[in-house]
Amino acid sequence: MIIVMSHQARPAQVEAVIERVREIGLRPEVSLGEDRTVIGVIGSNAYAYREAFSHLEGIQQILQITKPYKLASREFQPRDTVVSVAGVEIGGDEVVVMAGPCSVEGEEMLLETARFVASRGAKLLRGGAFKPRTSPYSFQGLGEDGLKMLATARTETGLRVVSEVVSAGDVELVAGYVDMLQIGTRNMQNYALLQEVGRSGKPVLLKRGMSATIEEWLLAAEYVLSQGNRDVVLCERGIRTFETATRFTLDLNSVPLVRELSHLPVMVDPSHGTGRWSLVRPLSLAAVAAGAQGLLLEVHPRPDQALSDGAQSLDFENFDLLMRQLRRLVEATAPEPV
Amino acid sequence: MIIVMSHQARPAQVEAVIERVREIGLRPEVSLGEDRTVIGVIGSNAYAYREAFSHLEGIQQILQITKPYKLASREFQPRDTVVSVAGVEIGGDEVVVMAGPCSVEGEEMLLETARFVASRGAKLLRGGAFKPRTSPYSFQGLGEDGLKMLATARTETGLRVVSEVVSAGDVELVAGYVDMLQIGTRNMQNYALLQEVGRSGKPVLLKRGMSATIEEWLLAAEYVLSQGNRDVVLCERGIRTFETATRFTLDLNSVPLVRELSHLPVMVDPSHGTGRWSLVRPLSLAAVAAGAQGLLLEVHPRPDQALSDGAQSLDFENFDLLMRQLRRLVEATAPEPV
Amino acid sequence: MIIVMSHQARPAQVEAVIERVREIGLRPEVSLGEDRTVIGVIGSNAYAYREAFSHLEGIQQILQITKPYKLASREFQPRDTVVSVAGVEIGGDEVVVMAGPCSVEGEEMLLETARFVASRGAKLLRGGAFKPRTSPYSFQGLGEDGLKMLATARTETGLRVVSEVVSAGDVELVAGYVDMLQIGTRNMQNYALLQEVGRSGKPVLLKRGMSATIEEWLLAAEYVLSQGNRDVVLCERGIRTFETATRFTLDLNSVPLVRELSHLPVMVDPSHGTGRWSLVRPLSLAAVAAGAQGLLLEVHPRPDQALSDGAQSLDFENFDLLMRQLRRLVEATAPEPV
Amino acid sequence: MIIVMSHQARPAQVEAVIERVREIGLRPEVSLGEDRTVIGVIGSNAYAYREAFSHLEGIQQILQITKPYKLASREFQPRDTVVSVAGVEIGGDEVVVMAGPCSVEGEEMLLETARFVASRGAKLLRGGAFKPRTSPYSFQGLGEDGLKMLATARTETGLRVVSEVVSAGDVELVAGYVDMLQIGTRNMQNYALLQEVGRSGKPVLLKRGMSATIEEWLLAAEYVLSQGNRDVVLCERGIRTFETATRFTLDLNSVPLVRELSHLPVMVDPSHGTGRWSLVRPLSLAAVAAGAQGLLLEVHPRPDQALSDGAQSLDFENFDLLMRQLRRLVEATAPEPV
Repeated sequence: MIIVMSHQARPAQVEAVIERVREIGLRPEVSLGEDRTVIGVIGSNAYAYREAFSHLEGIQQILQITKPYKLASREFQPRDTVVSVAGVEIGGDEVVVMAGPCSVEGEEMLLETARFVASRGAKLLRGGAFKPRTSPYSFQGLGEDGLKMLATARTETGLRVVSEVVSAGDVELVAGYVDMLQIGTRNMQNYALLQEVGRSGKPVLLKRGMSATIEEWLLAAEYVLSQGNRDVVLCERGIRTFETATRFTLDLNSVPLVRELSHLPVMVDPSHGTGRWSLVRPLSLAAVAAGAQGLLLEVHPRPDQALSDGAQSLDFENFDLLMRQLRRLVEATAPEPV
Repeated sequence: MIIVMSHQARPAQVEAVIERVREIGLRPEVSLGEDRTVIGVIGSNAYAYREAFSHLEGIQQILQITKPYKLASREFQPRDTVVSVAGVEIGGDEVVVMAGPCSVEGEEMLLETARFVASRGAKLLRGGAFKPRTSPYSFQGLGEDGLKMLATARTETGLRVVSEVVSAGDVELVAGYVDMLQIGTRNMQNYALLQEVGRSGKPVLLKRGMSATIEEWLLAAEYVLSQGNRDVVLCERGIRTFETATRFTLDLNSVPLVRELSHLPVMVDPSHGTGRWSLVRPLSLAAVAAGAQGLLLEVHPRPDQALSDGAQSLDFENFDLLMRQLRRLVEATAPEPV
Repeated sequence: MIIVMSHQARPAQVEAVIERVREIGLRPEVSLGEDRTVIGVIGSNAYAYREAFSHLEGIQQILQITKPYKLASREFQPRDTVVSVAGVEIGGDEVVVMAGPCSVEGEEMLLETARFVASRGAKLLRGGAFKPRTSPYSFQGLGEDGLKMLATARTETGLRVVSEVVSAGDVELVAGYVDMLQIGTRNMQNYALLQEVGRSGKPVLLKRGMSATIEEWLLAAEYVLSQGNRDVVLCERGIRTFETATRFTLDLNSVPLVRELSHLPVMVDPSHGTGRWSLVRPLSLAAVAAGAQGLLLEVHPRPDQALSDGAQSLDFENFDLLMRQLRRLVEATAPEPV
Repeated sequence: MIIVMSHQARPAQVEAVIERVREIGLRPEVSLGEDRTVIGVIGSNAYAYREAFSHLEGIQQILQITKPYKLASREFQPRDTVVSVAGVEIGGDEVVVMAGPCSVEGEEMLLETARFVASRGAKLLRGGAFKPRTSPYSFQGLGEDGLKMLATARTETGLRVVSEVVSAGDVELVAGYVDMLQIGTRNMQNYALLQEVGRSGKPVLLKRGMSATIEEWLLAAEYVLSQGNRDVVLCERGIRTFETATRFTLDLNSVPLVRELSHLPVMVDPSHGTGRWSLVRPLSLAAVAAGAQGLLLEVHPRPDQALSDGAQSLDFENFDLLMRQLRRLVEATAPEPV
């Protein structure tokens, strides 16, 4: 932590700050600039004590110099994490596609979708059984019945299954049916839930909060990691901005940046990140070109009959086209000897 | 719902949309403009079926014409709701001040604060026992011990007590100690929690999500109201914008606007909404001038020793000054015969 | 400037940074923390050289510790600036109201408005002659004819006149007719224009860019000040956020914060800041309660016939009501001996 | 335009709206829903009259149903525009790379850069001679001397040249030296400047305003097009959001969306869009995968000595690597027969 004194700070004010640093048990290192005094504060976790200075006079600014997350940082673990979801590896050489309907609406449509996406190369089936909906009057999902249908589809197709859990009390139930637990954007800072999935023993797909900074997103991962669960996959899904022409603004800057800052795998959800099916294919390709290690896609046999988010779901024909283009892209961008 | 056809839509595409409207059991009303055809879709809850049109061709835009919330709307209930918190009325003639420390840190500091804020006119004591913190390594609150201290402070001072609940599983516990349950900004879309407090029988203080639109905020209220709990008080607490000079951007536009759209009382939290104690006093006055029916304020006997959010807490001297200025403001702005 | 080395920086990388600091002619001050090395860089304007380090290895972060503006800062000039607009003082004890139509539409309506607002206490008449419109097909203002009408209204009512200038080439023309030049939100970073008004000899009303940080706004003021023109009045007019229920989000946090950071007077424009006339009155009161030293208000005799921005214009009745409430508020919040 | 009456609107209020529609010379089409009355307003440019209704009572909402831009829309011109910049085509089959330093700093460095980027496949040289800088104390560019150096580099390398113009008064001067005029993000709504480049006879590179919606961006293009200049190339360069880890948030959603809405070519500037050179390569590939028809890249022989924006400039080695990867990507994503 660095404390920058104001231009007009009086010597007694500087003294008071130094005194406080020592009281807390930290070590002050004073640097006299031409305009102002700067005090380095040495000691582990020094920034946690910043409040202790907030009402002292003569301070212009308090700066943090260490990142607030540890287990999630690449400083802590330089090599990439590879997460195994019942044998399917995320974060390794392959781009992993998770596809399926926004909500599980019935067994037949789910199986139809599962068979199709499996035939085109998807490795995981996604589908919501518990849906967080903005309005209390919207379809809220089939609950445990939906989970059972997902389990059936797994048996039949071999696809692994990922589904969202929205409440700490449901973690055990959902974990009993799926291979990977998804934390949705509205729950990225639901800390009770994060801790519970951290204790679940299942890999976790952690979506970025729609208004979360990258730092807050990595701190949310830290909540899961700090419970002993190292199998966390991050998923960019668009942030809220002033632009209203798309549902959200997909932030692909985050993909290579998170890969610099963290060792965790990063995926992208262009379905929610755009909200318009016609943009899903180009943004999927863009995500992979930017370094995404997987895609989360909404696919529905008849999007115009979907109970939720039909407008952003691909139909089979467009999913097929995307998978073919993706294969060519992946081959083209395979690492050359640099 | 209104469906705007594209300029270039062919007659067969218009026909297909009209056909679909009828299939669903709604009534189409077609209007031929100079440039394009517009189809009004008549029937209750028509907008819920918008997905059914998302993949039809020739559609430019689908517009919603009814508000998605009902119980929270002023159309549903024209007169102001007055919420009674164990006899203290919010939404009536008085501006109600809730004050106290960000976190309950110990009995002594809590009692000291409670006595002071009560002596200056506060009606409720606020204090966090369960704290949602961005980092897993930050102080997370005293839990039930904190609730007990709040109950003691209530007995001793007569102040009503409000505290945050962060998990559906804790609602019963917290409701056993407090007069009003607070839903924090990070949980505004934690629907499991909203439904649980909706069944709790306690008044609810619902903070706006830091990236929630006003419509989403009223829909969150709708979740509580639709469980039969009509005692909801809304609290503006700042939204996330590009501006970094303050912690959040307090959106005072929302105060008179929500009072137009809804019958629910509206309060403001300038402590979180600014993040800097020196801005809390002017923004408190501004909030009341804009029509806020109450204030939620962080007050700490020694802010520089606070375990959380000291930088935005008022000390006793500044709280006293604010309460005196507030009294003069309220007198000056009392309704005159217009 | 402070250079924070990464946790894993090697000694040779630290050496390279220190070497570069010396090459530039600045003085390095090295501080060894527990986790990482931090290098203070001493010398005036050190931050301007930050690019020189952007490609060196082993650097985690480069931090700025001085504010980038000078003439606008309260460190530079501790006492409040009072700007005289042809004898009307802004930044002194009185709250100054500038009112008038969005656009000058004709002489008759302008005189009618000028007489009314003058009779209710406004000190300046506002009205656009050159209008920056989002669409090339919208009404663009009457140009010099509009300026002549403003001059006539000044003669007749004694009101001072403020009008927007949108192009460096027009500054001389506009300055020939008005008492104060307004820089609009879309031109806050039109540096050619800022420099030209800086040389004009007229007081300048500088609106905040709709996506400008407070720091950028003060830097825009610095452009004007650095040309020798010290008569700059800042005007908050709402920023662009994700919220769409109002046209912009009026940022009243900025009012007391800018008054801390700068000695320049601060006004507020609640007409543009909300975009809805029904919100203008409450937000005007809020702005003054927050410390605004003036208001810029759109008033139109028949808002529903306005050629621009009628939706946010007050009619005479509502302007009258506002001015009466404002007077009571100002009396109530006059400084007491603290 | 559609006028939605409120739930509680009285018949006389509905009548008043209909009356006003007729007064203006438009045609009302009334539709009685279950809950409320909706009035379609037929006539060309009806939305321009919306202000005429803003103060009538009983109106809930006024909706626009036509896009406000015409010449820029794909409805107006279905086929792609191809812009020729002195013979180099943008918007055709090739991805066009424009590269060079942020600012022209001297002839030698410019020539060195021009030769290198030409040798690797760039078709245009970019370089700023007039720089809009946030601070008046930053380097503002070499002005006409810089333009002369660009012209020299063109002669020597055959590269076409693009440079920014920041003031309407400079358009003629800049147009005398360059092949394409760039409008920067801060001037996207400088309408005097847009109109002037619209009359210049030179192709225009129109960067998106950092807080401009896609609709506003297309309206800015409309300003240029409406002066008779059809050679407009759009350039996405990042928008301002709450995220501070990157300088801006590059909005790649805009690329395929603008290509749906408009016939104009779209490029991307990942240097400004990220602000960090290490992110430029992945985001360049992502932009092209999303459908961008060109890239605008900052390249500097020694980025750590750049006078501006060195942190986001590629050095030669990284530019070379990018161009090689780009070639493979373009081959892989060439259209297959679908």
